Amino acid sequence: MKKVAIQGVAGSFHEDAARKYFGTDEIEIVECRSFQSVCELVDTDQVDIAVMAIENSIAGSILQNYSLIRDYHLRIIGETYVHIQLNLMTLPGVKREDVKTIYSHPVAIRQCVEYIEKYFPNARIIENQDTAMSGKILVRDQLMDAAAIGNLRTAEIYGLNVWDSGIETNKKNYTRFWVLSKHANQNGGANKASLAFEVGHYYGALARVLNIFAENQINLNKIQSIPIVGKPNEYTIHVDVEFNAEENYEKAIHRILKNVSSLSILGEYVRAEMEITNQ
Amino acid sequence: MKKVAIQGVAGSFHEDAARKYFGTDEIEIVECRSFQSVCELVDTDQVDIAVMAIENSIAGSILQNYSLIRDYHLRIIGETYVHIQLNLMTLPGVKREDVKTIYSHPVAIRQCVEYIEKYFPNARIIENQDTAMSGKILVRDQLMDAAAIGNLRTAEIYGLNVWDSGIETNKKNYTRFWVLSKHANQNGGANKASLAFEVGHYYGALARVLNIFAENQINLNKIQSIPIVGKPNEYTIHVDVEFNAEENYEKAIHRILKNVSSLSILGEYVRAEMEITNQ
Repeated sequence: MKKVAIQGVAGSFHEDAARKYFGTDEIEIVECRSFQSVCELVDTDQVDIAVMAIENSIAGSILQNYSLIRDYHLRIIGETYVHIQLNLMTLPGVKREDVKTIYSHPVAIRQCVEYIEKYFPNARIIENQDTAMSGKILVRDQLMDAAAIGNLRTAEIYGLNVWDSGIETNKKNYTRFWVLSKHANQNGGANKASLAFEVGHYYGALARVLNIFAENQINLNKIQSIPIVGKPNEYTIHVDVEFNAEENYEKAIHRILKNVSSLSILGEYVRAEMEITNQ
Repeated sequence: MKKVAIQGVAGSFHEDAARKYFGTDEIEIVECRSFQSVCELVDTDQVDIAVMAIENSIAGSILQNYSLIRDYHLRIIGETYVHIQLNLMTLPGVKREDVKTIYSHPVAIRQCVEYIEKYFPNARIIENQDTAMSGKILVRDQLMDAAAIGNLRTAEIYGLNVWDSGIETNKKNYTRFWVLSKHANQNGGANKASLAFEVGHYYGALARVLNIFAENQINLNKIQSIPIVGKPNEYTIHVDVEFNAEENYEKAIHRILKNVSSLSILGEYVRAEMEITNQ
């Protein structure tokens, strides 16, 4: 059985992501207090794999996690998208009108502001690091005047009542997760890659790299410049590319290596589909 | 006197940013509960200007704020960078060993994890929306067993003792703020612009646009693709560009308009320097 490290506690969207990626394979979820300790567990062989959020369609990229992946030399071996749907949950026996306090993750709260202002305008909001942790707190402290905002898995694990579902304002909200390991994917058949490179500081340096991708029918799926702090005007460029022919990708990589000052392949893997279920 | 809306309360890094940008000009800070209400105040002419965080060197871009700026049709008229330095503060009379709880913004807490684990391994951490608010809570509730993590302005406003300064792990931590108004900058003399555009879904569409910048000696300062949710494989590209000659910039814009399906100029303004004071 594979051991899979996640930040946060069981029931979180990280667990959803791990279960979605591994499907019917049995996995053991290893809970971690921080993204850093997730990486440490992989690095010290205490787990086989980590599943880590890397970007959200509303909140953006999680740059800290990009840094952690590079610092720990982890390899991306896969990706998955989770449609973020949020629910208001309480302990059984709690009535809607009893709810004086709402617990959740700050990003989840921001995404439910309209719902909260409409139905619980006077509620005290308490933020914590994890939507699932919010559900766990209700049970641990037997809170009869509080609610948590989180996913359905949290309700299931902690035996909570779900009052309202899909309470997030923007229904097209997904989070992308990377599946990480100490070693690169050996299976072949990749059709997507995540790369980081630095280009010289002259006009058109980046355009030249993008031209090489285009000439080799490689689609640019994401591009993001990240300033190198302490070096004004220097950037690391992160790209995700998709390709049908691996030989074209190999050819492009070889040509690009001659045009950049450094290139890291963060991982080559099979692309996931982003399925947004409309409610 | 200019009225300047910020998210959060006085004493926050947003206030630091506003005071840095306006220098000796007198301004009145208008506190807002959310970034959305900041935009609403500008839109309804209740304030002249807003100052809004747009990216942090460690946490990344705040995509929600990009969306808000576009939704409210605000114009960027300037930018400023604030070096984020964090301090541990308590009410006067509180001893170090009395501290059982630490209040701060989640991002600030993450940046001080090493310090907290070393000096306050057993402290309870309470997150809230604002570093300055954390200082305000100490005073409001007269908490004699708690500390707040925030900037020096918070200590000054709320009369707090500063125990330790520069407690953040990464010393090269800055936040970039945009200065926003309902109307574009009329002063001329811009040497930087923030643009958003959409390109067709074919190989090399983005490279073509970047080539036009390069041919006109326009430096690309930031690039970021933002997925258009609900339209797989379609992206908005956000760029910041810098130029010495305004006529080159104008020429490039005209050529680019023929190569993109839409282009928005979010603002043209004078670039700010990022000064990182090393301690």
